[in-house]
Amino acid sequence: MSPKRIDHIGIAVRSLEQSVPLYRDVLGLKFLGYETVESEQVRVAFMEIGESRIELLEPLSPDSPIAGYMEKKGEGIHHIALRVDGIEQELDRLSASGFRLIHERPKVGAHGSRVAFVHPKSTLGVLYELCQPED
Amino acid sequence: MSPKRIDHIGIAVRSLEQSVPLYRDVLGLKFLGYETVESEQVRVAFMEIGESRIELLEPLSPDSPIAGYMEKKGEGIHHIALRVDGIEQELDRLSASGFRLIHERPKVGAHGSRVAFVHPKSTLGVLYELCQPED
Repeated sequence: MSPKRIDHIGIAVRSLEQSVPLYRDVLGLKFLGYETVESEQVRVAFMEIGESRIELLEPLSPDSPIAGYMEKKGEGIHHIALRVDGIEQELDRLSASGFRLIHERPKVGAHGSRVAFVHPKSTLGVLYELCQPED
Repeated sequence: MSPKRIDHIGIAVRSLEQSVPLYRDVLGLKFLGYETVESEQVRVAFMEIGESRIELLEPLSPDSPIAGYMEKKGEGIHHIALRVDGIEQELDRLSASGFRLIHERPKVGAHGSRVAFVHPKSTLGVLYELCQPED
């Protein structure tokens, strides 16, 4: 495995309406658009920075994992997504290395990408997502 | 202001000895080296990923800000560093926009860079560093 880049950093926010102006107008990042990811019950705002993105994640319901996260930890950095090729093989390899996977198989993320999360207990407290764009 | 890229993500770890093999051998990132940053009382391991780096931060003493962070929150993502030009002007601009700055003026970070932190109370819970490489 050799991740190609930081695909994105996911940041939990209570309100996109409040946070998008901060990132776009004050920090000066390029706003790319919104998307709703039903499987995670979030609405996402995408901001470009170099070869990476910042994804602001607002929960759509109390059942969203992002809502649960903020209840415990408040707003802040939720995960780091690493761009990989061959996500299935990478998951198999990590699993064989003793890593605890949140998703054994990829599921569909934003923009039709395939994504899977590794449990932060395996990665010294950091929630990593593996992410492979749609072919 | 328009940050050029994610310069690095700083991750608080208890032990570089334990964490470097995870990042280098399992996640497959390129290990770039170690550096001690006396001003922050940390030893840092640098890993390359695309145009960015992951910096693993091990406290050298209980007085290190990283030690204080881990006492409260445990191991995990500590900050996101944005690469900027003209760091002094950016700090002035953020300050004038009402942002709370941890450092009003840049101080010396790893590799002779000039760095300053913005208080996470101003940035919806995320600790951002502005970072300008040595000329």
